[in-house]
Amino acid sequence: MSKNEKEKTRLDPWGITEIQDYERLYREFGIKPFKPLLQEIPEPNMFMRRGIIFGHRDFERIVEAIKNNGEFAVLSGIKPTGEFHLGTLMTAREIIYFQKQGAKTFYCVADVEAYEDNNIPLEKSGKIAVGNIADVLALGLDPKKAYIYRQSKEMRVRDFALIFARKVTLATMKAIYGERNIGLYVSALIQAGDILLPQHEDFGGPKPTVVPVGIDQDPHLRFTRDLAQKFRGKYGFVLPSSTYHKLIKGLDGSPKMSKRNPMSYFTLHEPPEMIAKKISNAFTGGRPTVKEQRELGGIPEICSVYAINMFHFMENDEEVIKLYNDCKSGNIICGECKQRTIEIVLRFIRNLEEKRKKFIDKAREILQVE
Amino acid sequence: MSKNEKEKTRLDPWGITEIQDYERLYREFGIKPFKPLLQEIPEPNMFMRRGIIFGHRDFERIVEAIKNNGEFAVLSGIKPTGEFHLGTLMTAREIIYFQKQGAKTFYCVADVEAYEDNNIPLEKSGKIAVGNIADVLALGLDPKKAYIYRQSKEMRVRDFALIFARKVTLATMKAIYGERNIGLYVSALIQAGDILLPQHEDFGGPKPTVVPVGIDQDPHLRFTRDLAQKFRGKYGFVLPSSTYHKLIKGLDGSPKMSKRNPMSYFTLHEPPEMIAKKISNAFTGGRPTVKEQRELGGIPEICSVYAINMFHFMENDEEVIKLYNDCKSGNIICGECKQRTIEIVLRFIRNLEEKRKKFIDKAREILQVE
Repeated sequence: MSKNEKEKTRLDPWGITEIQDYERLYREFGIKPFKPLLQEIPEPNMFMRRGIIFGHRDFERIVEAIKNNGEFAVLSGIKPTGEFHLGTLMTAREIIYFQKQGAKTFYCVADVEAYEDNNIPLEKSGKIAVGNIADVLALGLDPKKAYIYRQSKEMRVRDFALIFARKVTLATMKAIYGERNIGLYVSALIQAGDILLPQHEDFGGPKPTVVPVGIDQDPHLRFTRDLAQKFRGKYGFVLPSSTYHKLIKGLDGSPKMSKRNPMSYFTLHEPPEMIAKKISNAFTGGRPTVKEQRELGGIPEICSVYAINMFHFMENDEEVIKLYNDCKSGNIICGECKQRTIEIVLRFIRNLEEKRKKFIDKAREILQVE
Repeated sequence: MSKNEKEKTRLDPWGITEIQDYERLYREFGIKPFKPLLQEIPEPNMFMRRGIIFGHRDFERIVEAIKNNGEFAVLSGIKPTGEFHLGTLMTAREIIYFQKQGAKTFYCVADVEAYEDNNIPLEKSGKIAVGNIADVLALGLDPKKAYIYRQSKEMRVRDFALIFARKVTLATMKAIYGERNIGLYVSALIQAGDILLPQHEDFGGPKPTVVPVGIDQDPHLRFTRDLAQKFRGKYGFVLPSSTYHKLIKGLDGSPKMSKRNPMSYFTLHEPPEMIAKKISNAFTGGRPTVKEQRELGGIPEICSVYAINMFHFMENDEEVIKLYNDCKSGNIICGECKQRTIEIVLRFIRNLEEKRKKFIDKAREILQVE
């Protein structure tokens, strides 16, 4: 069997951007595969169904809570360094999903991290955050049932960080974050404070909490779970749960979407013509000629255009499966697919833009930014 | 000339507890000798007159401000780990002195440091601080003209710490504090925030500020001056000034008063009989026999009883000079001197205890502790 034939027979529309190191993650870091839990979850979201969320820690607790109407919380956030992009879109949708499943919802503006790590002054990140929060509200987060806050203004988080700091050795910090300025370490401690905030007595004390993150964020989770363990005696913390999603590759074929590489990603508020251009130029699984592609089919598994459809813009699974099959069979070729994707993306963005305007004042009010 | 004769001829009642390393402090660390400034100071306090304050950084600025009625500030504080002792008594008196000279006065309860360094929970140190603040008010600090606060509750200080952290490398921290838990580093940053708080815009912005400390505290000053320099562009900081006092040796002859060594020191609220006992047992400059002492005289330069008189309990210089001469000439021997010292100390302490009671409620109110 040739390589191409193999690709054709391994028909798995969710098999994209495989993490090669699964086994290592499971074995060395104690992350568990998500799939066995899938059937237990009353209403799995599209990331779960499609294997984009592929791993977890202690998510069983969350499943129990959802099934039994038990108390649980979800926390996520955004580093206010710029506009919403596909990465922040993903966590925003995850948190909205858990809110709908009944979670007490916490959404954190990581302005301390934006300062310590990216040198964005707090005054400036406050303004950036207004747009970010308007986005997450436009996407469907219900502000009446969510606690949305800036790290720098949330004293309970900062107090946790102060308390935790005493039991964090330099060796631990260096192992996780390397030799960095103290500000970066302080920011890591504050993030641990964020993750445990839902368990603060002011919010009803200990409870299961899920933190949906990209797999690259796992060190923060391990760090925080370790602190939760150390301060269990004092606060009764339940070790926080997490889900891990795969990371999407860059549009230009680079290993990840990155600000350093503007053609690798787009924000949700770029000029439409720029977005269209980036998608038009995107790296695909196409063949050298149209003729070959009609004959052999494309390779959606390596295609960044297929990826953004599956990760973000096609909410219906059937539609994704159809695109996958059409690509594999040579029914659709790259030019047409890109054109369709551009239309879907721009429609999504126009729609978001429209809704977002209505939430700007609300966002200002929540963040107390002029 | 014999050793004893040399001791007799080198008649300097202020020559006690010499710091052997003066030259090194001056040469390597940029500390300047205090003596040349003495005549410029309108009303030098007893620590200045007696050479107990022996060094400074940029104190000229403070002298100018005092002479010209210019704006300046003083900051000091206490780590609320226990009762007032002779070390905290010294800085309390220094700050009261500068308040009388017209300084905007800041007195900080270092509860974060008490937690990070000594594992005293904030709730507990709040209670300890009530007694400490009552003491400093009883000693004469005017609360109407002073800002007294707990580090953990002072967000401007904590915000400074957060801002400063970004520009502090791990190498700097390790050089000053060694390999410590992150909490200790956080506490050092907060202390820098304390020292620069008088220059916060809420307190009228940049101004000369003096921090009177023991010479062992100089690393904090260097660290903070370095930060003041780094953030000068943003905040316009004037580099903080400092004065350095000598450290008194332990009553038992050990190199310093230390909690680890209960016979080396007493607190201002120990049972009188315990204080009396510690002074009775104190290491002195006496001779093996009374006869010898009458003939040769004592050696006040090495005597811990003479030291506490000179450092703390004899406010009149003439009295100290008389004690010095009486000791040197064999007019007074140790038993009698100790008895007199016990009386002076206990009178001081009874007096303080009496006044302190009246300030407990005020201290609670200031610290907002139940």
